[in-house]
Amino acid sequence: MAAHKVLLEESEMPTHWYNVVADMPNPPSPPLGPDGKPVGPEQMLQIFSMPILEQEMSPERWIPIPEPVREIYALWRPSPLCRAERLEQALGTPAKIYYKNESVSPAGSHKPNSAVAQAYFNKQAGIKRMTTETGAGQWGSALAFATQMFEVELRIYMVKISYEQKPFRRSMMQTWGAEVIASPSNLTQAGRNALERDPGNPGSLGLAISEAVEEAAGREDTKYGLGSVLNHVLLHQTVIGLEAKKQFEKINVYPDMVFAPCGGGSNFAGVAFPFFADKAAGKKIRLVAVEPSSCPTLTKGHYAYDFGDESGYTPIMLMYTLGHDFMPPSIHAGGLRYHGDSPLVSQLLKEGFIEALAVPQVATFAAGVQFARAEGIIPAPESNHAIRAVIDEALNCKKTGEPKVLFFNLSGHGHFDMASYDRYLAGKLEDYDYPEAEIKAALERLPKVG
Amino acid sequence: MAAHKVLLEESEMPTHWYNVVADMPNPPSPPLGPDGKPVGPEQMLQIFSMPILEQEMSPERWIPIPEPVREIYALWRPSPLCRAERLEQALGTPAKIYYKNESVSPAGSHKPNSAVAQAYFNKQAGIKRMTTETGAGQWGSALAFATQMFEVELRIYMVKISYEQKPFRRSMMQTWGAEVIASPSNLTQAGRNALERDPGNPGSLGLAISEAVEEAAGREDTKYGLGSVLNHVLLHQTVIGLEAKKQFEKINVYPDMVFAPCGGGSNFAGVAFPFFADKAAGKKIRLVAVEPSSCPTLTKGHYAYDFGDESGYTPIMLMYTLGHDFMPPSIHAGGLRYHGDSPLVSQLLKEGFIEALAVPQVATFAAGVQFARAEGIIPAPESNHAIRAVIDEALNCKKTGEPKVLFFNLSGHGHFDMASYDRYLAGKLEDYDYPEAEIKAALERLPKVG
Repeated sequence: MAAHKVLLEESEMPTHWYNVVADMPNPPSPPLGPDGKPVGPEQMLQIFSMPILEQEMSPERWIPIPEPVREIYALWRPSPLCRAERLEQALGTPAKIYYKNESVSPAGSHKPNSAVAQAYFNKQAGIKRMTTETGAGQWGSALAFATQMFEVELRIYMVKISYEQKPFRRSMMQTWGAEVIASPSNLTQAGRNALERDPGNPGSLGLAISEAVEEAAGREDTKYGLGSVLNHVLLHQTVIGLEAKKQFEKINVYPDMVFAPCGGGSNFAGVAFPFFADKAAGKKIRLVAVEPSSCPTLTKGHYAYDFGDESGYTPIMLMYTLGHDFMPPSIHAGGLRYHGDSPLVSQLLKEGFIEALAVPQVATFAAGVQFARAEGIIPAPESNHAIRAVIDEALNCKKTGEPKVLFFNLSGHGHFDMASYDRYLAGKLEDYDYPEAEIKAALERLPKVG
Repeated sequence: MAAHKVLLEESEMPTHWYNVVADMPNPPSPPLGPDGKPVGPEQMLQIFSMPILEQEMSPERWIPIPEPVREIYALWRPSPLCRAERLEQALGTPAKIYYKNESVSPAGSHKPNSAVAQAYFNKQAGIKRMTTETGAGQWGSALAFATQMFEVELRIYMVKISYEQKPFRRSMMQTWGAEVIASPSNLTQAGRNALERDPGNPGSLGLAISEAVEEAAGREDTKYGLGSVLNHVLLHQTVIGLEAKKQFEKINVYPDMVFAPCGGGSNFAGVAFPFFADKAAGKKIRLVAVEPSSCPTLTKGHYAYDFGDESGYTPIMLMYTLGHDFMPPSIHAGGLRYHGDSPLVSQLLKEGFIEALAVPQVATFAAGVQFARAEGIIPAPESNHAIRAVIDEALNCKKTGEPKVLFFNLSGHGHFDMASYDRYLAGKLEDYDYPEAEIKAALERLPKVG
């Protein structure tokens, strides 16, 4: 057997993030305010600090990764590029399967790549406190870890039902020193309004966002941290794909296809955008975003302006969306339950540079279990979406005899998702196709532009 | 900052395990049967396969690691050697702190180092099935992963109260294809007897061992797998210390002190025995086994012959023991709740080559939280024992100004132990010193030899 892992030394870690905007054939459409005009920086500065905002707007191809960020990255990065040779053998495929193992971070997912950067830049800007929201807790735990590294205080609004039913991610955030508040809370107007309407409100991600944003907007010393969707978050994640390209170079291999799960887009962008740079330069490569068929934003959504949050507090953005009032079914890949998608990912899909496909839930867990039994690691439910698509492609290669090189992002481990595996193994998981009629109806409720 | 991690390529992984017996000044005492005579191989072969038994008895210094075992090791090994520079800074110590990160294995601890070897050698011996026991699930999940890799069936007797209260490790074992049975069960005589006495019996590790051993002894196609204590298990774990020595060589550093948590002994032996080889050759180095003050086997136990299990089914072994009918307090470091200790570790302590110290529970969690906030990784409660001892030594260095090199084994992560961190953070954890009177009384109940 060849070596399983391709490693990089810390000295080989990328020194810059890659900004895809520089290579996009068409400029991205700006977020718009209620008046239909591009949102000015002063509005954004209420919740984001200046360095973050500069990155959000930057047209530069390469953005330097500051040394203190690289030092924290070095606690787990560069992450290994692994060859899934035992999975190939189990499938009997001529395809070669590689994955980037992002589960090795302290928080267990790719999320700290942006969390560390956000904590650092806010600290640099003199910010003492941050707020954020979290559902099941992946982003919240990443930012809790990151803010602890730079001694920034953090308050996390955690969807109440997760706060109560999934206490272990909460304990993780508290171990890293973050304050975790069940949302809706009585600390914000949004929370108090919700509790007044319904004292037993179990919370939602949209509401938790509103609480975190409201607090950040109302306090001079506090800024807000976001885990996906926006340009700066995607930017920070490109360290994944940049490392992977170096690793593939070392073994003189280049992928035919790149797969990643896609919810808000940071996971997919992180691994795929650096390869898009090659594609823009004429290289042949397919970039595939994989989403749940229960939340088919990219494959069935509208390409239209919509709010980023449920309550309609944010600017509107041009993206694929199922409607901001979309009620996500309670699937187990919590990180993929988002009504919209990153504007950058959406635009590249619209313009035909990337592909998207949707996979049903039960099949993703079957893929995850097959992966675990071949390669050891038990993947996060989000990662299982990419694994499903890769296995399907590998089985297709078996039919055609093509020795394609398939590469995916193993974005996280499933240690905090074993209850979902339990339900799968007990035969209790179900598929859910989001109804076409609901998607059609959402079109009517999209905000009118201009 | 210097690089955080010292990496090895897979090609640099050790090719042999190190057998400490070859360098011990005095030969180890053999296990004895009920007649007071050394146990013959035919009795051992009822539950262990021949290659395992050969390793258990071998006097050879170096035992080859078969290529298929190295291929599975390569899924995560060599594990990184890390410098805890942020922890040093937080402590303000002149000491240099290094740790071996064994939490990167698929099962999240060092346990697979032996599990993979045991699964492989049993497979080679034509064994189709294995049995084992598990408490909270660390060893069970390691062997579930390992047997899946070699397509050996596995039945795990899991202490019933853990089976019910800690379902996530159980789901992990099932994801890797193992059958998990709540113990006591009606599948064995030992289980049926226990249930007859008390239908609501919550189980114990001793009883689960009895069930697993009984089944293996009664079936031709089935052998038993053990997670610590015996020589062959300690042998397999030496891959940790052997890698660490290569890694220290690369940076031209040599530790002054090596620390590891110690329950059955495989964790401590794995990291410390390869350094003992240097000590036996005259090198100056201190090797420190750290145990809970609630289960002070090495620091307060009797050095005497005792049974390995609660029920008295096993041969008797010369070791430090609190008495085989010791009732372990329900501390959170489940892996350290064992009445005895490895005979090899015990003998080296008795003969003055290693040291032992006991630390109280609350202080170990304080150390774990301090480590997590400095270095990111949330450690297993077992690992926190070593971290406590290292922090105390580093603070001592701060007083004396000595720039000692302190090295410890981060034996696992705490992802499945967040409920314990939760209790610590809520101020609900308590210390428990095992009463001296109980230890004295146990002496009367030890088996009589000869």
